[in-house]
Amino acid sequence: MTSAQLTLYQHLAEDLAESIRTGVLRPGDRLPSVRELRRQRGFSPSTVFQAYAQLEAQGLVQARPRSGYFVRTQRTLQGLLSTPAWSSPEVTPVSISELVFELLGSTRDAEVIPLGSAFPAPQLFPFDELARSGARAMRRLQPAQISGALTTGDETLRAQIGRRYALHGVQLQANELIVTNGAMEALNLCLQAVTQPGDVVVVESPTFYAALQALERLHLKAVEVSTHPDEGVDLDALEALLKRQKVAACWFMTTFQNPLGALMSNARKEALVQLLARHGVPLIEDDVYAELHFGPRRPMPAKAFDREGLVLHCSSFSKCLAPGFRVGWAAAGRFGKTVDRLKTMSSLATALPAQLAIGEYLIQGGYDRHLRHLRDTLALQQRTARALIDRHFPKGTRMTQPRGGYFVWLELPAQIDTLKLHKLAMAQSISTAPGVLFSADQRFRNHLRLNVGHPIDGRVQAALKSLGALAKSPSVLRDN
Amino acid sequence: MTSAQLTLYQHLAEDLAESIRTGVLRPGDRLPSVRELRRQRGFSPSTVFQAYAQLEAQGLVQARPRSGYFVRTQRTLQGLLSTPAWSSPEVTPVSISELVFELLGSTRDAEVIPLGSAFPAPQLFPFDELARSGARAMRRLQPAQISGALTTGDETLRAQIGRRYALHGVQLQANELIVTNGAMEALNLCLQAVTQPGDVVVVESPTFYAALQALERLHLKAVEVSTHPDEGVDLDALEALLKRQKVAACWFMTTFQNPLGALMSNARKEALVQLLARHGVPLIEDDVYAELHFGPRRPMPAKAFDREGLVLHCSSFSKCLAPGFRVGWAAAGRFGKTVDRLKTMSSLATALPAQLAIGEYLIQGGYDRHLRHLRDTLALQQRTARALIDRHFPKGTRMTQPRGGYFVWLELPAQIDTLKLHKLAMAQSISTAPGVLFSADQRFRNHLRLNVGHPIDGRVQAALKSLGALAKSPSVLRDN
Repeated sequence: MTSAQLTLYQHLAEDLAESIRTGVLRPGDRLPSVRELRRQRGFSPSTVFQAYAQLEAQGLVQARPRSGYFVRTQRTLQGLLSTPAWSSPEVTPVSISELVFELLGSTRDAEVIPLGSAFPAPQLFPFDELARSGARAMRRLQPAQISGALTTGDETLRAQIGRRYALHGVQLQANELIVTNGAMEALNLCLQAVTQPGDVVVVESPTFYAALQALERLHLKAVEVSTHPDEGVDLDALEALLKRQKVAACWFMTTFQNPLGALMSNARKEALVQLLARHGVPLIEDDVYAELHFGPRRPMPAKAFDREGLVLHCSSFSKCLAPGFRVGWAAAGRFGKTVDRLKTMSSLATALPAQLAIGEYLIQGGYDRHLRHLRDTLALQQRTARALIDRHFPKGTRMTQPRGGYFVWLELPAQIDTLKLHKLAMAQSISTAPGVLFSADQRFRNHLRLNVGHPIDGRVQAALKSLGALAKSPSVLRDN
Repeated sequence: MTSAQLTLYQHLAEDLAESIRTGVLRPGDRLPSVRELRRQRGFSPSTVFQAYAQLEAQGLVQARPRSGYFVRTQRTLQGLLSTPAWSSPEVTPVSISELVFELLGSTRDAEVIPLGSAFPAPQLFPFDELARSGARAMRRLQPAQISGALTTGDETLRAQIGRRYALHGVQLQANELIVTNGAMEALNLCLQAVTQPGDVVVVESPTFYAALQALERLHLKAVEVSTHPDEGVDLDALEALLKRQKVAACWFMTTFQNPLGALMSNARKEALVQLLARHGVPLIEDDVYAELHFGPRRPMPAKAFDREGLVLHCSSFSKCLAPGFRVGWAAAGRFGKTVDRLKTMSSLATALPAQLAIGEYLIQGGYDRHLRHLRDTLALQQRTARALIDRHFPKGTRMTQPRGGYFVWLELPAQIDTLKLHKLAMAQSISTAPGVLFSADQRFRNHLRLNVGHPIDGRVQAALKSLGALAKSPSVLRDN
């Protein structure tokens, strides 16, 4: 199969998938026949069959013998958050849950099936090639590179990162990039750059627990804003909040939000940036999942629409290339100098060997090939996992169908307490991420984030079955 | 020359150097003759000559034709701080000087002669061997190591670090070590673990500017305690302060303090730990220079005397093996869990490639050989630089003679403003670290820290000469 064929059928598959998502093609609709697509758009039969096979593998369509392909009924989580979080606008001092650390601790244990983990399976990453690149770069290491790297980052790496943004149509200043110890450090530095202790920061609801932890660490207060599982943060709710409440910053994940997987459209991202610019509020954009898109193109970051330098964009290689290498970055707009200085003050610089290894890997090529394979794998795993959840979990369970990343967010029937479920599952060496992790209050007590970034092998299949069975048992019912 | 011979003459040289330092041998005293040493202690003539040559190279003794070797008169900075800092016990909110960043920025410029730098010359470090170790470790990298390292650090590296402490007689719990992004991150995490915004922290006077920066970043207040250039922090002053003032922590550098080079004796370290234990005050111990001792043994850290778990000991490989690799650690005693959690929250984990490279290097052996060579080189450079300062700087200049590290601290005549000197020197592409960097007030306006960790080649020799000439010019005199 040539690379051109690959692109062609994948483009067709994505066009059709997009039509399904946007409702142009609805559940039960028949897909165009091979003959129609050949006549109208010039596709060869083999291209069409390959595209349909991919859509079927993704669970979007099903073949009916002698009738053709039909759009499947999707179980999605549309409209989950019918009560917007901002209607109870508590400004909450954040307090860390022991649970987060228990969860993180459990992922260190190879015996535990990591459905609660925040990382994909390490075997999905090209460690052999990274090792070769790292070895090559290390052999070429010059003492002079050391003092150069005791700054905002290795020049080669920064140039490569900047080049990738430019290819995707995002223009960053070459010297705007500050290399950090993973996105986590970038986010923390950006947060500190725009806040003082006691300030209020807007987060999504549900939000990534690390954002809540960062707020606690810096003695900040959180306001959670309702976030749609498909479209992302509720802009009307946000606007109402900004009119009512002094806010130091927003911390949002605009693409494949953790835990929902929500993807804001370009139009909504642009509207968000404009809204915040009107109020002079900085946006800390956590964009670590963007490369894991199942669609044909990398979604644009909100940073692409930033004209005021108010977007502090953060990302890393930890989820898409090199977990454990701890190479992330910030492009902090008008706060760049402050972030650079905070970095100098808090950890001086980012380790050179990992920067050299990744810089060399990017120059050698192969990153895009790796990403294509990774995306296909994650899409397939999501489909398989969703089918198993569909089969094993209690009636009334709803779940998201993100267009990228490796999380599925479940809403279980209201009487189920997912913290109880988590504890019972841990006793069976299965970790999960219960909903209470993702909010400073008890709003998501019957919700669950599952990691589908690990191969759905027999062990994981059995774990999903066990989880479903546990979720049906009386021991997971709420006390009140 | 065999390794045993090397050890023998070095031991002899160190014994004699110690006698000179402690005053057993005084300026003008004649050293024992070859015959005496052979008779009394069994040394061969060649061992004695080698030892004397080393002492001469260190500037401690001088040969007089046909008379033997005599102890030289030393220009040291004893008694510099005659007015203890604590007598004006201002609790000062810390505010960052632009100067620190200007200084750090200048060290990135290869054209600037880095007398103001905080790092030794990169060519003093075994990058070839580190690169080979790194390449080997990278080729053996297993995906499973990734999740293991997303914790307190790579197990191999932690075991190697723990083993070195044990060899020096410091018993740490194996799991007490948390690997960090350099000592800077370790210190920042430890500081955050024991303070809340607004708290008061005791630092040395003068103190390392990064400590002042860390305090500012965490919205803390500083009290500076008088520090003797030879003996370290004034324990009487500290005790008086602790009785008068609520203090959240002390941040001290007990061995080869930056900028003074002071080395607290074991007895004084133990007394410090006991004093703080009586007051229940944690000690953050910055111990990054201990491996750079010119004497025969690594000075013990205060941590060695800690029975209450109140010492948060921090160190790194950045000054003695691998600058730019950003591998440091904390052994935080009873605060270990808190530091571990803060690390997880702020940067998740430390980059694996650098940990693997150093772990492999330590296993291969050669670290102690490298260190011996590094120490000899730094001692020689210090001697040469001090001789040049002696020759070129204005009458009345006094300077320290640290027993390790790579800084010399100068007290220039009182009417000289070293900030003016710094600016004039920068115009000639010579960086220095003026005294105002090392205190929150203007106490050290006529002081200067010089880095002698770079080979004293023609360029550096000319720079020291130029600096001395500048220091004699009227343009560096104080305005008032």
